[in-house]
Amino acid sequence: MNDASRRYTTASQKGSVGSVASCYSLASCIGAAAATGAAGLYLGTRINSEDKNKQIVSDPADPYLGSEVGALKAPAVIPNTDYENEPKPAYYSDTSRPMHERMEQFVLDLQDRLVTALEYLEPSKKFFRDRWEREDGKGYGISCVMQDGQVFEKAGVNVSVIEGTLTAGQLKSMRDRNPQTAKKLEAGVEYDFRVAGVSVVVHPRNPYAPTAHKNYRRFEVFKKNDKDAGPVMAWFGGGADLTPAYLFEDDVQYFHQTLKHACDAHDPAYYPRFKAWCDGYFTNIHRGETRGLGGIFFDDLEDKSPEELFHFAYDSGSSFIRAYVPIVARRMTMPYSLRERNWQLIRRGHYAEFNLVYDRGTKFGLMTPGARIESILMSLPLTARWEYMNKPEPGSPEEKLLKAVRTTTEWAK
Amino acid sequence: MNDASRRYTTASQKGSVGSVASCYSLASCIGAAAATGAAGLYLGTRINSEDKNKQIVSDPADPYLGSEVGALKAPAVIPNTDYENEPKPAYYSDTSRPMHERMEQFVLDLQDRLVTALEYLEPSKKFFRDRWEREDGKGYGISCVMQDGQVFEKAGVNVSVIEGTLTAGQLKSMRDRNPQTAKKLEAGVEYDFRVAGVSVVVHPRNPYAPTAHKNYRRFEVFKKNDKDAGPVMAWFGGGADLTPAYLFEDDVQYFHQTLKHACDAHDPAYYPRFKAWCDGYFTNIHRGETRGLGGIFFDDLEDKSPEELFHFAYDSGSSFIRAYVPIVARRMTMPYSLRERNWQLIRRGHYAEFNLVYDRGTKFGLMTPGARIESILMSLPLTARWEYMNKPEPGSPEEKLLKAVRTTTEWAK
Repeated sequence: MNDASRRYTTASQKGSVGSVASCYSLASCIGAAAATGAAGLYLGTRINSEDKNKQIVSDPADPYLGSEVGALKAPAVIPNTDYENEPKPAYYSDTSRPMHERMEQFVLDLQDRLVTALEYLEPSKKFFRDRWEREDGKGYGISCVMQDGQVFEKAGVNVSVIEGTLTAGQLKSMRDRNPQTAKKLEAGVEYDFRVAGVSVVVHPRNPYAPTAHKNYRRFEVFKKNDKDAGPVMAWFGGGADLTPAYLFEDDVQYFHQTLKHACDAHDPAYYPRFKAWCDGYFTNIHRGETRGLGGIFFDDLEDKSPEELFHFAYDSGSSFIRAYVPIVARRMTMPYSLRERNWQLIRRGHYAEFNLVYDRGTKFGLMTPGARIESILMSLPLTARWEYMNKPEPGSPEEKLLKAVRTTTEWAK
Repeated sequence: MNDASRRYTTASQKGSVGSVASCYSLASCIGAAAATGAAGLYLGTRINSEDKNKQIVSDPADPYLGSEVGALKAPAVIPNTDYENEPKPAYYSDTSRPMHERMEQFVLDLQDRLVTALEYLEPSKKFFRDRWEREDGKGYGISCVMQDGQVFEKAGVNVSVIEGTLTAGQLKSMRDRNPQTAKKLEAGVEYDFRVAGVSVVVHPRNPYAPTAHKNYRRFEVFKKNDKDAGPVMAWFGGGADLTPAYLFEDDVQYFHQTLKHACDAHDPAYYPRFKAWCDGYFTNIHRGETRGLGGIFFDDLEDKSPEELFHFAYDSGSSFIRAYVPIVARRMTMPYSLRERNWQLIRRGHYAEFNLVYDRGTKFGLMTPGARIESILMSLPLTARWEYMNKPEPGSPEEKLLKAVRTTTEWAK
């Protein structure tokens, strides 16, 4: 971990008063969301107060089924949610260093900041940190995994920094996908690549707390054995999306609004474009449903200078902590019963379907000899359920969610 | 349901003495398996005696976790396991009727016989029988599903009888797959098809009782709108395979031996060929594992007369009940704990991976507009689990299973 992330962690853990202040200032800076009351619900000391009078449901059928709710206390403040007001790390503006190194430092820093924020909510355990190296020496990764926590049933925050030579098939697929790429990559020339990325999936235990996914990476392509000449092309890809089992409009609006705020600071065209891209990509075509309720998704992004795009990646990547973790804090203490747990597991079955049937990254990974299957499939939920002909009752909260994943909604104001 | 299957059901439910007799005669007719003691273990009154002294494990963490074991009693005899000695139904040899009709009657009969045998083991509920029709009138199906039983966590026995016109893509894929087909299907001609099939997946609750899958179908192709001229080509496809979470060599040998016995009666070359085909097909390539411990698998089978192939399909399809249901009867009362349940769910995760990532039928179904998703995905387990870096301890029963799915073994003697 680098100095910047250590400083962030320490600052946020010590300075709760300061953090409360910046949380409230966050609420006001999200304009429309704050006006509708959505943003304010998630931050500050109000998180835990609303649900106090609700019945705590504890069911012996599941050791965690509601039994954890009574013991849990959502934190009043969450560290690392205020990327705009905290000091920027040195790598943010150090143009003297190669972008690949700065991206590597960013994904490690972001991993550390997110892990810190998530651990702040989980009383029962810490992330397991697992560093691995590729056997051929062409890269390494750090997998941070938590399983069977009281708040997080399964959460993974993975960094990987990999290099290699592009196969003919990979070159073809890159050229086919993007005409700009086709122009830049000459025929008959061999190319190397390197990529630094962070990939996140969080499955909370409480059925009212949504699953979320995030992925940020930068890809560089070089003429083979000629790294010193700099990349022939380079792009950013990534995104963040929310997958609730139950629909709280406030949560989804807040999530989208927070991502939109981060996008708008760089290009007002980004959020609408990336939101639509996300809806299109994360679709279980066979069910006529989106996987969740969207967010942003983009790839092959090279429409601005690397410096501008890096700042966008920094802001939108960092905004994920602010967009997501407070929602978990708000929902993690809500009582629930077997009914909600069951529905959550059915939705997780659909989540697994998307990842195994459609997700390009997963499919590419599974078909790559020597790939690290454990890291690729870490996105799958700890538990999933497939019931024959499960059909929510008309007017039920489960049906409300089903309608939402079958409709395209503009969540951000 | 047809008369033949009704008679079978009634006969077997009434005639337990007769069934016991035929069960024991079955044991002796499986030659080598009986000689090793494998076959005898599964049938007759010895099923429940061995495990009586073992500790019953009941865990409040799972309402079914072992708590059902004490109450369960495996039946002394299982109906419909003795296809060779029971009288053949009329459709078996009625050559005056079209093969498609006889196949339709066979799959309905087999569905009924299997459902009867499985229900004989399950004290808590019956199969839910769900008849559906395609909206375009081009076919129907009967889905028999059981969920959340004490013995069967999820079981589906589905018949479908479908017709339609082959798309250009389907014709291409059929021609590419088989040179014989390419010769028979003329270019520039449109073709209709019809298919009758039965598809089965059984996931027992007890981790010591294996999952099994079976699928038998007959496919006919006609010149478009010219059914009266008879099929231009027709073939049988199918198979049966066993997926245990724990390895009992006796079970696997018995399963293979029983299928081999059915195959050998028709062609001694069938079992070795179809066994290898099964091992190759049901492979989770990304894990370097077979899905389970094999069985038989075949497709495009038209190497004998339709009559001979129909009799082979009848025998090998029917032999599944004898090959599989007694194994469940033997294992359903074995005490288990959270450890075994957990491992079972992890193996079910791998099962779901195969079906969603590789299985041709599932993939084809998911990509077909208007397909009945609930029937296609009925093969998925009720629950599955994905743990990061789950690694069985050296020398453990879990590792023993893992070694078995990473090795090719000749189970039948």
